[in-house]
Amino acid sequence: MQYSGVMLAPAVRIDEARFWRTVERSGAIGPGRPGGLSRLALSDADREMRDQFVRWCRESGYAVSVDGVGNIFARRAGADASLAPVVLGSHLDTQVNGGRYDGIVGVLAGLEALRTLDDHGVQTRRPIEVVSWTNEEGARFTPPMIASGAFAGVYDVEWVLARADDDGKRFGDELRRIGYAGAAPVGGRPLDAYFELHIEQGPLLEEQSVDVGIVTKGYAVRGYIVEAAGETAHTGPWPMDKRKNALVGAAMLAVAVNDIGWRYHSTGGKATAARLVAWPNRPGILSDWAQLTCDVRHEDPETADRMAAELLDAIPACAQRSRTAMKVVDHWVFGNERFDPECVALVRAAAARLGVPTLDLPSQAGHDAYHLGKVAPMAMIFTPCREGITHNNHERAEAGTTAPGVNVLLHAAAARAGR
Amino acid sequence: MQYSGVMLAPAVRIDEARFWRTVERSGAIGPGRPGGLSRLALSDADREMRDQFVRWCRESGYAVSVDGVGNIFARRAGADASLAPVVLGSHLDTQVNGGRYDGIVGVLAGLEALRTLDDHGVQTRRPIEVVSWTNEEGARFTPPMIASGAFAGVYDVEWVLARADDDGKRFGDELRRIGYAGAAPVGGRPLDAYFELHIEQGPLLEEQSVDVGIVTKGYAVRGYIVEAAGETAHTGPWPMDKRKNALVGAAMLAVAVNDIGWRYHSTGGKATAARLVAWPNRPGILSDWAQLTCDVRHEDPETADRMAAELLDAIPACAQRSRTAMKVVDHWVFGNERFDPECVALVRAAAARLGVPTLDLPSQAGHDAYHLGKVAPMAMIFTPCREGITHNNHERAEAGTTAPGVNVLLHAAAARAGR
Repeated sequence: MQYSGVMLAPAVRIDEARFWRTVERSGAIGPGRPGGLSRLALSDADREMRDQFVRWCRESGYAVSVDGVGNIFARRAGADASLAPVVLGSHLDTQVNGGRYDGIVGVLAGLEALRTLDDHGVQTRRPIEVVSWTNEEGARFTPPMIASGAFAGVYDVEWVLARADDDGKRFGDELRRIGYAGAAPVGGRPLDAYFELHIEQGPLLEEQSVDVGIVTKGYAVRGYIVEAAGETAHTGPWPMDKRKNALVGAAMLAVAVNDIGWRYHSTGGKATAARLVAWPNRPGILSDWAQLTCDVRHEDPETADRMAAELLDAIPACAQRSRTAMKVVDHWVFGNERFDPECVALVRAAAARLGVPTLDLPSQAGHDAYHLGKVAPMAMIFTPCREGITHNNHERAEAGTTAPGVNVLLHAAAARAGR
Repeated sequence: MQYSGVMLAPAVRIDEARFWRTVERSGAIGPGRPGGLSRLALSDADREMRDQFVRWCRESGYAVSVDGVGNIFARRAGADASLAPVVLGSHLDTQVNGGRYDGIVGVLAGLEALRTLDDHGVQTRRPIEVVSWTNEEGARFTPPMIASGAFAGVYDVEWVLARADDDGKRFGDELRRIGYAGAAPVGGRPLDAYFELHIEQGPLLEEQSVDVGIVTKGYAVRGYIVEAAGETAHTGPWPMDKRKNALVGAAMLAVAVNDIGWRYHSTGGKATAARLVAWPNRPGILSDWAQLTCDVRHEDPETADRMAAELLDAIPACAQRSRTAMKVVDHWVFGNERFDPECVALVRAAAARLGVPTLDLPSQAGHDAYHLGKVAPMAMIFTPCREGITHNNHERAEAGTTAPGVNVLLHAAAARAGR
């Protein structure tokens, strides 16, 4: 497929050093373990990063707006203000043991793309916006990608604002506390297209020495929150055949989920027991409540469905073995996302025009782009990260291998905004 | 064995209604789930109960002292103040889903015994003290029985004061906050004997319609805190064969421990996975740290050792399966406690003299008496609880079936204090 739109001259390139300075500046805000970040959504560190991002955007003259769930949009005007914008973005929050690149390079790539258009005096027909989505990671407020979901109409805004973290603090209260409860409506406006650049979070680009990944689809993910209900009792005298230890029921399911992952490992399947909480979860007493957050993933949706069926079959088996009552209380599905063929072709054409080799890849993680794909034509660009390590302070990306992806983003976005 | 000491007249009995009013008053302080209590150590509710207990003791003219870890002693003078006291006690704190009787009836039985001696103008040769031990349950600060352990010299006082709850609040700070950081030295003084009355926390007395259990030994308990160390990574792309999910390692061990309990169930063995915590324990990220608190119990110490050996064997197996590093970071042993033959005989003689049927029983739970047995001759009396249910808001005891044990306690203590 040959792209027929307006393209920037191939010589137009980002200022790699300037771009990387923004990444490094971000890497100093909310330090976590050595080399990593712990910049949870709506924390003081998140506020500091947001303030820095907004400052950068305003310094370049972009109009900044914040919506009711804290998503920040910086708009570079186009020739025709009435046209729907092209939007570039990702997220600036991290996991509690997060890296300095996941999400961050995507937001800052968008900023760098706008700055580069300024450098070259390019006026696009459509406005181009850079967005930072709130709480993508779900490390503080569940579910992940909650604010892009609200933007796309998947979640009700009031429901999002009422979500509480593990300390009982509410999303809406924390948003006000850090000064990012904005006045802009959440979603409900047309976007011409959405492009998200993100580190691959896998090893394929690095292994093949290719700097730009073109995402063609999302892995099929089936996620579940499962609860076990039992009875508290003394850990001493209470006989085994009367026990209803909810912690044991959840632990059994955690093991079963992990085993499912191994059964599908040879074809790239994964299954994860990510979070287990129990109550009272204390010495001396059996727990009467436990909750496991788990998921299965596979590139092939039908295989993912088989894995999910095995997980669902394991629930009554674990309930019986642990003598607890177990049930699914929440579930979610990814992998039906629409990567827009025209936008994907535009990315491919931009890379070709720049002479940058590309690799077609599926996305294995969840991304804000998945929600955006419901309300706008969407495409994603992946850039390399060392050994695929992510959600870890050892996550690493390099300016030299990230810049080609940012240039592709720039050229694709400019072309789209020239329509 | 016939007891040869001084005994009260058999007609001397406690005021059952007065005794039960104190139990019912306690049952209104720190309400938890319906019918139960949630009176964690050093909480506001614990303070309110302590204040009530101290008020009762002072109203009767007993000298109240509080030691450096918050243990409260109420002393009824004897004829010879230079003699070591006979001590009766238990604890007033509860589990987070606790009942109204566990520990509580033991402290209030001691108070009622002293009041009954007052009623009858009995002067004992030795002083008799009632004690309420701090944080027996271990529901807030670990380990359980921490303050009786400090009294017995098992734990260093400074170490106890530095223990933190799950919110990071320190034992010593909370003790000061509620006004129970006392001036009395912790332990280091001779006790003539220690008697503890406690609900059975098992069904045997009720099943056999016997109201008084004479504890002859403690169950052998081998407890462990085991940690798993892994690596954080993304729950999506990270392949199964690179994962080191500490949560999975701990969950595997929790299941293995529960299986050990079932293997020994036919001979009354139990094994418990009581507490599992992990970090980050969040959606989207594999945990790199997890900790399991677990134990095995059996009446026969050699069998308990075999169960413990199976648990220890399971650790490297779970570590290998989960690809994490797992190790024991703390462990404890119960079941070597010395129940003093003379004190046990005295309890038996008192029951015989009162015409109260008794049943010899082992203790399956841990008790403050275990620590006291290290520094004083010690015996325990059990009273019935419905269906053996405990550490649960459905825990129930009745005045009519508890009073016989309190009378036995009274007569045994008075006899011992008459020596």
